Amino acid sequence: MELLKKRILEDGEVKTKDVLNVNSFLNHQIDVSLLKEMAMTWYEEFKECQITKILTIEASGIALATMVASVFNVPLVFAKKTKTSNMNDNVYSASVDSYTHGTTSNIVVSAKYLNSCDRVLIVDDFLALGNALKGLISLCEQAQATVCGVGIAIEKGYQGGGDELRTSGYKVSSLAIIDSMDPNGKKIIFR
Amino acid sequence: MELLKKRILEDGEVKTKDVLNVNSFLNHQIDVSLLKEMAMTWYEEFKECQITKILTIEASGIALATMVASVFNVPLVFAKKTKTSNMNDNVYSASVDSYTHGTTSNIVVSAKYLNSCDRVLIVDDFLALGNALKGLISLCEQAQATVCGVGIAIEKGYQGGGDELRTSGYKVSSLAIIDSMDPNGKKIIFR
Repeated sequence: MELLKKRILEDGEVKTKDVLNVNSFLNHQIDVSLLKEMAMTWYEEFKECQITKILTIEASGIALATMVASVFNVPLVFAKKTKTSNMNDNVYSASVDSYTHGTTSNIVVSAKYLNSCDRVLIVDDFLALGNALKGLISLCEQAQATVCGVGIAIEKGYQGGGDELRTSGYKVSSLAIIDSMDPNGKKIIFR
Repeated sequence: MELLKKRILEDGEVKTKDVLNVNSFLNHQIDVSLLKEMAMTWYEEFKECQITKILTIEASGIALATMVASVFNVPLVFAKKTKTSNMNDNVYSASVDSYTHGTTSNIVVSAKYLNSCDRVLIVDDFLALGNALKGLISLCEQAQATVCGVGIAIEKGYQGGGDELRTSGYKVSSLAIIDSMDPNGKKIIFR
């Protein structure tokens, strides 16, 4: 998606060869107009799929997934990273390693909000190794829901998670795929 | 707001006299159409205030705040609960006690995304003792930004946080204010 690539080049900060900071428009301060354009792109791509639910993971995926749910006019469900006292015990859960934070967390979705009739579009802001996505796909499998596709804002192509999922048969639609980043030249090469 | 109150009565679960579970439409599975109606209500109320930014706190406030930012057509900024390696050191921070989770967390906003020209509408899903809001207001004060108002989905009126903020001069617009909840009779009394 040219609009997103342009914005990454203008406002993204290459911190290391692996870390791209997009806090100014996607991860901390959020440009909702851009999010809406991104959501519309996926709507065009998945509108025939009878999507019934958008699934994401807290926290940074929620804003994008909210706009996607709004455009598809279906509910959003976000997997929670810890089991709060406010949830009952009937949950699907998966373990997720975070590349950015160097931590492992347990993600859960209440069994009430994901079921075998659901046709799910999974949405997240970043895809690197694909650990978060594998966790979300596992939640869908536990619920016997159908994963119709995966919408990703920025895929770090060189980390391989996206291609691994494509090889496994998932339709992964990344709006910007980065093949390499150079923190010295501040250079970003898109696929 | 009648639509929200009706939904709380229909789908909210009173767990204890202090805990209302609205996971089916606001906190875990999210009805984005309802969120949009809520956002429109605040737009009518604050549209003359020249709002430049919507501020919330991760994670459960993000979906609602995204819809509000979309309706106002301004950026959303969400305060982060831990300082990630992906943020620089120039941040505003505040300490927040969570009533629901029984924890204390540090919330931060990068100084880049909140400044003295900003006219802020703070948005959150719940207001009980007001600790999260006091933290967000503190971030605005540190940035010398103007807090034009506070939009809350559900205020637990009997916990006093909302009235304390109103007494301090803040315009707090809660779409549903609960005066009491009875877990036995499943009864909810609105103000």
